Amino acid sequence: MKALVLLAPGCEEMEAVILMDVLRRGGIEVVGAGLESGVLTASRGVKIEPDLPLDALETAKDFDLLVLPGGLPGTEALLADVRVRDLVLYYAATPGRLLGAICAAPLVLDAHGLLAGKTFTSFPGLRDRIESKGWSADPVVEDGELITSQGPGTAMAFALRLVRRLAGEDAEESVAEGLLL
Amino acid sequence: MKALVLLAPGCEEMEAVILMDVLRRGGIEVVGAGLESGVLTASRGVKIEPDLPLDALETAKDFDLLVLPGGLPGTEALLADVRVRDLVLYYAATPGRLLGAICAAPLVLDAHGLLAGKTFTSFPGLRDRIESKGWSADPVVEDGELITSQGPGTAMAFALRLVRRLAGEDAEESVAEGLLL
Repeated sequence: MKALVLLAPGCEEMEAVILMDVLRRGGIEVVGAGLESGVLTASRGVKIEPDLPLDALETAKDFDLLVLPGGLPGTEALLADVRVRDLVLYYAATPGRLLGAICAAPLVLDAHGLLAGKTFTSFPGLRDRIESKGWSADPVVEDGELITSQGPGTAMAFALRLVRRLAGEDAEESVAEGLLL
Repeated sequence: MKALVLLAPGCEEMEAVILMDVLRRGGIEVVGAGLESGVLTASRGVKIEPDLPLDALETAKDFDLLVLPGGLPGTEALLADVRVRDLVLYYAATPGRLLGAICAAPLVLDAHGLLAGKTFTSFPGLRDRIESKGWSADPVVEDGELITSQGPGTAMAFALRLVRRLAGEDAEESVAEGLLL
């Protein structure tokens, strides 16, 4: 199983790193792809070097999961990027692929019409910026292949849910135990 | 208030990033100093660029808090580093300074005799590698200026406790609310 984590300048570093680390603990092959090349500065100043720039991926369309960390500056960068639009539309339209977003990143899915008729969540303070009506107060929300979550404090639960979906409940339980959750 | 986070190759990236991010959210000036210069690869492959190498700090002794993220490969690097030994001894001996360690990193404090007679915690699976007797099963343990914690799943609670100690309960509550905790 393979997961693609999109890393934008200004992303929420806890969300980005928790996703990459927890998915790898679950035995999932993770690529953290930067919107730009080189080291990025995340929302609270932590500097992260993506595994490679998105443009250097031979294809970004052969992953089992596409997942977007949040952070408001990072989400604005995701919103402005036509490659991200194409990818979320592709993953949402392709059977068997999972699409995940946490915190501010569900705004990207909303902007491209992917939350219409769905149940989802986001950072609660951003709820008013989302046009679609299916907002749920649960920390992690699954609606078919769409999985969303609320913020840093729910990021481990979100990552574990993605491990469950990609690698099964035993893998999820084993990773949770190692995290002391 | 100022905090120094020591970043070793092979550190647990969630612990390192949660500490830096949450402390900064609490208004604390954080320096993430690398044992080596340049980008480091953390325990699950996330690449982090420290704010600067430890050797480039004019002084590492004027912080209010010295805190060590865990991760077992990273902790071995901390154990082998004479600069780290000198710093933990200095912070432990200097009134008013806080010393924190999480996960495997309490092994470093134990190796330098700083857990003797103290109540502390660590990653539970490493308890047998610690000679001192005061191990506690609590996720975050405070004994005077020594604050310890267990692992990735307790890292946010640990970082929030450090915010409380450095910036007060109002700051801690405000940060916790922003994290959705």
